[in-house]
Amino acid sequence: MQSSKQLFTLITAAGQLEMSLKDTPLPTPKAHEVIVKIEAAPINPSDMWPMFGPANLAEAKLDKAKMQLNAPIYQGMLSRVSSRLDQVLPIGNEGAGTVVAAGEHPAAQAMLGKTVAILSGATYAEYCCVPMQACIVHHEGTTAKQAASSFVNPLTALGMVETMRMEGHTALVHTAAASALGQMLNKICVKQGVNVVNIVRNQQQADILKKIGAKYICDSSAADFKKHLLQAIDETGATLAFDAIGGGELVSDILTAMERVGSKDAKGFNTYGSADNKQVYIYGGLDFSPTILNRAYGMTWGIGGWLLMRFLGKLKPERVVELHKLVADEINTTFATTFTQELSFEEAITPATINDYNAKKTGAKYYINPTKV
Amino acid sequence: MQSSKQLFTLITAAGQLEMSLKDTPLPTPKAHEVIVKIEAAPINPSDMWPMFGPANLAEAKLDKAKMQLNAPIYQGMLSRVSSRLDQVLPIGNEGAGTVVAAGEHPAAQAMLGKTVAILSGATYAEYCCVPMQACIVHHEGTTAKQAASSFVNPLTALGMVETMRMEGHTALVHTAAASALGQMLNKICVKQGVNVVNIVRNQQQADILKKIGAKYICDSSAADFKKHLLQAIDETGATLAFDAIGGGELVSDILTAMERVGSKDAKGFNTYGSADNKQVYIYGGLDFSPTILNRAYGMTWGIGGWLLMRFLGKLKPERVVELHKLVADEINTTFATTFTQELSFEEAITPATINDYNAKKTGAKYYINPTKV
Repeated sequence: MQSSKQLFTLITAAGQLEMSLKDTPLPTPKAHEVIVKIEAAPINPSDMWPMFGPANLAEAKLDKAKMQLNAPIYQGMLSRVSSRLDQVLPIGNEGAGTVVAAGEHPAAQAMLGKTVAILSGATYAEYCCVPMQACIVHHEGTTAKQAASSFVNPLTALGMVETMRMEGHTALVHTAAASALGQMLNKICVKQGVNVVNIVRNQQQADILKKIGAKYICDSSAADFKKHLLQAIDETGATLAFDAIGGGELVSDILTAMERVGSKDAKGFNTYGSADNKQVYIYGGLDFSPTILNRAYGMTWGIGGWLLMRFLGKLKPERVVELHKLVADEINTTFATTFTQELSFEEAITPATINDYNAKKTGAKYYINPTKV
Repeated sequence: MQSSKQLFTLITAAGQLEMSLKDTPLPTPKAHEVIVKIEAAPINPSDMWPMFGPANLAEAKLDKAKMQLNAPIYQGMLSRVSSRLDQVLPIGNEGAGTVVAAGEHPAAQAMLGKTVAILSGATYAEYCCVPMQACIVHHEGTTAKQAASSFVNPLTALGMVETMRMEGHTALVHTAAASALGQMLNKICVKQGVNVVNIVRNQQQADILKKIGAKYICDSSAADFKKHLLQAIDETGATLAFDAIGGGELVSDILTAMERVGSKDAKGFNTYGSADNKQVYIYGGLDFSPTILNRAYGMTWGIGGWLLMRFLGKLKPERVVELHKLVADEINTTFATTFTQELSFEEAITPATINDYNAKKTGAKYYINPTKV
């Protein structure tokens, strides 16, 4: 192969989204590089903003002859994407396939013919050229579809547990906890004997987690939610939370409960609250509304963003390799992902299909297979 | 001396504040301890919550015969002070005086007769028994009144600059910046060549800071405040802020400006914002209303509480000694505090006087002199 069909996204300064399939030349892999023939690249929620930005997808149109999707950007929203205007950009954070070419490094050569998963930012393509260190080499028998979601959810879930240990906590709270990621987190924690306080929004989500062995589940739609949350935090001693929601008062409520637990035996002034380090990381933004902090948690607390890529950058390379191996070993159990729909390139840029996957329904999970015609 | 007159505070479960002057026995100092005869103990804003809690001071009454102040606790507020109910507690965070007795350790003995400042939590007393390490030994000629405010403001200001360096920042933003603390911070930073972006609330406060050489002053009451803030953060490269206010959107606005500066040259998606570590520490609560976070600053940001005592606990002991020495050396310049009123014990618990100092007016500064009759 000399070239590769690849999906690109472009937002013009004039306010148009153009997503299109283009032929791009394939480089000869350098010593440490491999070329992966992509067979399955998931469309994760985190891919959608790069793909579409603030486009009005209800008005999207596909030009089949040019294999190009066009949609107008919502009025007034262009400033939100000023850094990307008029640039043709690759998309697709992760994917899996077969190594079909490799640089001269023996470790790269050893990967020829193997099924690997990659994290690259350009996986919506027939072929990807990546450094060999960016690959998770999967076991024989693992298919590309099974391996497709090896990075985003598995390493985020593992990263939460790593963060917990690195920062001296012993249990954690997770919101929007019935997500695919949340289920992985519970499987990891059940195995490792770590307690997770799962916050969900309805009974159906609670049931999903119960089935996989989750012990602490708090339904935020229940009247006595705050009481249950306090109990669960008290029993687990959780002083760390990961929040996928962002908006509203939940982050503050979690810290308030942690403080009440930390201060329950306090004597004297306790003006500055418990000395426990109470931390919430916001890693998602399901609710774009402002985060409201009531600050009823003394002086020893923190809130911050948490981003997988930046977290991985803090780990020692050998630890990253260990985590990769763990994902390969348990890709069909702990880290299994169930896909509901396979898309060709054309389907991926067809307005009706976009409408389906952009809805981000619980349980619905799409991937692109560039070899599907 | 065998006993010491000392002010204590008590909030009863029945909802009464009782502040009273009591005789307490003085211990014999252990080897590493000294006894300080207090001559000046400031009433800082941070002393007032321990002293009064949520008492309705408009209804306070002084019983002169018993030397006891009584005031009712505001209805429904008792739960905010549940940890201290029915406990007689000492008050007064800092103060200064003369070492009048010392344990057998040579270093303790060497302090006899010297003017020292202490941080103890029980300085509203004739005498305090403290470990010698809790003292800043002042130079000959420094008076107790000059030395009285050696800890809370000076070490907080120094701690901010220490934090800046320890966490890899090179400039900082400060709110409520015309405070005594804010002025010290500017003096320190002018000396050390560190840029401070000062946020104040009116022109009068701006003028105070201009006089002491502050270069970056942003008036939040000005129409173009956000533009000025952005400019100042751009010019200084500040990625750290200390906030004394807490409530409202200012914390969020500071982070937003830092992100805009960090992302101004960004190309491509920039979905997760600048990789600069943007941090705001909330160290005060001038505004009790909720903190509102708009989260328009990518994924690399943090907000948290900052408390002097917990920060000092992270420093190496030899660094603490260095900072103490710095305070002693510059107590009449960088760390000078101007007191406007000297109070006897009786005056300190007299309702009209309480009303004055509890107003926390800019420029007004009170201290207790136990020897005043």
